Amino acid sequence: MLRSIQRLRRHALEIMDAAISAVAPESAVKRNLRLKKNILCAGEHELDITRFRRIVVVGAGKASAAMARAVEHELGDRISDGLVVVKYGHSVDLKKVRIKEAGHPVPDIEGLKGAEEVLSMLDGCGEGDLVISLISGGGSALLPMPANGISLEEKQKVSRILLACGADIHEMNAVRKHLSKTKGGLLARAAYPATVVNLMLSDVVGDDIDVIASGPFVPDRSTFADALKVIERYNIEQDMPEVVIKHLEMGTDGAIEETPGLGDPVFDRVVNMVIASNITACRAALEKAKDMGYNTLVLSSMIEGNTVDVAGVHVAIAREIIRSSMPVEAPACIISGGETTVVVRGDGLGGRNQEFALYSAGLISGLEDDVVIASLGTDGTDGPTDAAGGIVDPLTESRGRKRGLDLNHYLDTNDSYHYLSTTGDLVKTGPTLTNVMDIHLVLVASGSYLK
Amino acid sequence: MLRSIQRLRRHALEIMDAAISAVAPESAVKRNLRLKKNILCAGEHELDITRFRRIVVVGAGKASAAMARAVEHELGDRISDGLVVVKYGHSVDLKKVRIKEAGHPVPDIEGLKGAEEVLSMLDGCGEGDLVISLISGGGSALLPMPANGISLEEKQKVSRILLACGADIHEMNAVRKHLSKTKGGLLARAAYPATVVNLMLSDVVGDDIDVIASGPFVPDRSTFADALKVIERYNIEQDMPEVVIKHLEMGTDGAIEETPGLGDPVFDRVVNMVIASNITACRAALEKAKDMGYNTLVLSSMIEGNTVDVAGVHVAIAREIIRSSMPVEAPACIISGGETTVVVRGDGLGGRNQEFALYSAGLISGLEDDVVIASLGTDGTDGPTDAAGGIVDPLTESRGRKRGLDLNHYLDTNDSYHYLSTTGDLVKTGPTLTNVMDIHLVLVASGSYLK
Repeated sequence: MLRSIQRLRRHALEIMDAAISAVAPESAVKRNLRLKKNILCAGEHELDITRFRRIVVVGAGKASAAMARAVEHELGDRISDGLVVVKYGHSVDLKKVRIKEAGHPVPDIEGLKGAEEVLSMLDGCGEGDLVISLISGGGSALLPMPANGISLEEKQKVSRILLACGADIHEMNAVRKHLSKTKGGLLARAAYPATVVNLMLSDVVGDDIDVIASGPFVPDRSTFADALKVIERYNIEQDMPEVVIKHLEMGTDGAIEETPGLGDPVFDRVVNMVIASNITACRAALEKAKDMGYNTLVLSSMIEGNTVDVAGVHVAIAREIIRSSMPVEAPACIISGGETTVVVRGDGLGGRNQEFALYSAGLISGLEDDVVIASLGTDGTDGPTDAAGGIVDPLTESRGRKRGLDLNHYLDTNDSYHYLSTTGDLVKTGPTLTNVMDIHLVLVASGSYLK
Repeated sequence: MLRSIQRLRRHALEIMDAAISAVAPESAVKRNLRLKKNILCAGEHELDITRFRRIVVVGAGKASAAMARAVEHELGDRISDGLVVVKYGHSVDLKKVRIKEAGHPVPDIEGLKGAEEVLSMLDGCGEGDLVISLISGGGSALLPMPANGISLEEKQKVSRILLACGADIHEMNAVRKHLSKTKGGLLARAAYPATVVNLMLSDVVGDDIDVIASGPFVPDRSTFADALKVIERYNIEQDMPEVVIKHLEMGTDGAIEETPGLGDPVFDRVVNMVIASNITACRAALEKAKDMGYNTLVLSSMIEGNTVDVAGVHVAIAREIIRSSMPVEAPACIISGGETTVVVRGDGLGGRNQEFALYSAGLISGLEDDVVIASLGTDGTDGPTDAAGGIVDPLTESRGRKRGLDLNHYLDTNDSYHYLSTTGDLVKTGPTLTNVMDIHLVLVASGSYLK
C-alpha cells in the first residue's frame, strides 16, 4: 500500500506541475501572441505592425514582469518603450521594458508613481501607436491612482469599509472604479486613439474581465449613481470620507466625466483577451491525467465557499468513486479550481490550500483504498507561508499521530502548516510568478491498478 | 425563455419523482424479498420457508409499517406474528403485523413499550423460527430501551451532552450502544438461534449498517472501554448521570456482558441487507435523466457540510457546464445526495433543502442560460415545514423582488420557506413514508435544446 500511495502522490504532483506550467506567464503569452513576419497575431486578431509608429508595453500585476519577458522575446527591439508595475520581489530581467516595484496588497507611493507614469505614457500615445497591456492579479493595488482630491489613505479607508459591510465584488468595484483615474476603462480612455492589445491573466472566479485588476481597459458596467446606491444600500455614508461622497455626487451631477461604458468609442481599438485563467490550468491537468491513464473530470474552475465544506464535497466524491465507481471509475482524477475562504478561528499558520488538505486528511484517514488529495495555490504561495499547499493520503493522520499531533486541534487553530510540515505533506514550489487561484486534485486508484 | 425553464422544472420534478419512487419502502422490499414457491429469495440468499415453524416480523423506523405492508404482500398468511414501531401518524393498513406508534425524535413511553414487546417476541424465537426485521431511519429513537437501572431521561441527557460536546456519530454510538438493551447487535442476541433477515432502509451517509438505527442486528465495533474513552476524551464525566458512568465501568470490569462484536456466533444466522439508500435514489435519477436525453453524472451520495457552501459548489458546476461544457455537456443533469447542515442564524422557517434552493437562486439569478436547481428531502419533509424542499431558476430572485422580497434577508434569517412559498418555488410531496436523506439536482440546458 505504501508504495502505491507514493506513486499516486507523485502522479498528483506531476499533474499539478502540468496545470501550473500551462498558466505560466511565458507560456500564456506565447500561446496568444505571435509575430509572423510583420503580422502580430493576438488570438484571432492580426495586426500589421509596420502600420505602427511605436509599440508601447504597459502593465501591472504580480505576473506582469514575467509576461513582459515573453513579449520582449516575441517583439524584441520593436518595442519602443514600456513600464510594468509589479509587487516587490517580482522583477525579472528585461531588456526594453522598465519595471517599477510597488506595494501589494496595500498600495504605496511607489505604486502611485508607477500609475502616474503609465497614465502619462498612455496619454502620449496616438493613433499610430500600439499599446500592449499586461494585466494580472494584484494589478488593481499596484496601479493606485485616486481621483482628484482624494488621497490614497482615503481610498483605502473606503475599501476597508466596503469589505466590512459585506458588499460583493461588483458593488465594491462600482464604488472603487468611480474614485480612480485608472480603473473602469480609464486607461483605455487615456490610450485612445491608440490600438490596444490587453492581455489578462485572470485571478478572479469566472474571469469577468471588468473585475480583473478592476478592468483598466474594459467597459465599466457601473455608474456614479450605482456607486452612491451601494453606499446607501449598506448605510455607510456617515463612515465615508466627506470628499468621497462629494466626488460621487459631483459625478452623478455630471460635473465629473463618467467612466466609459459598453459602446464607448474609446474601446473601438481595444482588444481584451484573457490569456490564462483557472480553467486553463484545469484543462492542462485534465490532459495530463488522461495521458497518465486516469479517468478524469473537471468539476468546475469556479469553486468558492468555506474551505472545509468544499474539501468535504471533494472527499465525498472520492468515497463514491471507491464505493460505486461514480462519477467516474478508478483510476480517477477529479480536478477543480477556484478560491475558497478560510474561517479564521485560531492564530496558527496556514493557508486555504493547506487547510483544504488537512481537513481532507482527517476525512480519508484510514481508508484502505488509495486516495490522494492535493490543493495548491498556482502562485506558489498559500497564505503567509512558504508552501504552495498540501498533499495528503489515508496515512497522513497516522503519521501525525505517531509524532503526537492531534489533527483536529491543528484544524481548530488554523495551524495546517505546522501539521503538514511535520507529516511531510506540504508542497513547496517557490513563487511561480503566475496566479490563477487554486487547483484541487482528487486521485483514487483501485488497489489492483497500482499494487 | 420562460417556457423552456418551465419545461426544465418539470423535468427536474419528474427525475426527483423517479428517485423517490425507487426508494419507496414497497419497491425497496419488493426488489429484495421475493417468494418463489416455497423459496424466499432475500438478495442472494435463498431460504426454504417450509423449514421454519414460524415467521415473525419486527421492525422500527419511520418507514417500517410501509415496509411491513410489502412483506405482507409477499408472505401473507405465512406470517405468524409481528410488530413494528413507527412514528406517530406513520401507520398504514396491515393484516398480520401489528403497529405501535411512538415518539420521534424524542423517545417516549410508547416506544419503550414497543421495544419491550419486540424484545420479548425475539426472546421467544427459537432455532425453527424466521425473523424478518424491517429497520429504517428513526428506528433508534423508536426502540428506546435503556440498560438496567438507567432511565429514558438519563439516556436522553447523555445524547444531548454527546451532541453538544462535538462527538462524532461513531463516538456517540459507542456510548449509546452500551447503555441500551436493543442497539449494537443486542436484538440479534435476543433472536438467536432464530434465522434473521434484517432489511434496512438507510438514512445515514455512507450506509454503515452499524449506524443505521444503531445496528440492532449488526456486530458492534465498539466496547464498554471505548464508551468510557469517549467520555474521557471530551471531558464530560462530571456532566454524565452517575448511574451511566457506573454502568459503563461495570461493563468494562466484565460485570455486564459486552455487546456482540464481529465473529460473535449470534450473527451466524443473521443476513443484513441495505435494501435502499441514497445511492439507490441517485441511480434512479441518473437512469431517468438519461432516458430523457440528459448528459448525467452522480457526483456523490455522501455529500455533507454546510448547506450554502455545498449549494455553492453545485452552482459552480452549473456555471462551468454553461461556460465550457465540463464536467458534462448541456443538456446536463448533475445529481448528488446526502445530508447537509444548516447554520442557524435567524428564527425563520425552512429546512436544509429549502435553504439549498434559496441560496442557489441568489447565485444563478439573472443567468441567461436555462438552469434549474432542486433539493428535496426524500421523506417529503424538510425541516419543520410541509414542504419537501425547493426548486429554483434564474428568474426566482426577480419573482421575489417583484413581490418586495430581499433574498439575502430571507437567507440571513433562515426563512427560506416564506421566500420560496411567495415565489412559487416550494416543492410539496407530502410524507413519502421513506427516508434516504436528500437529493440535489442541477439541470442545465443550452438554449437551442429547449427553445
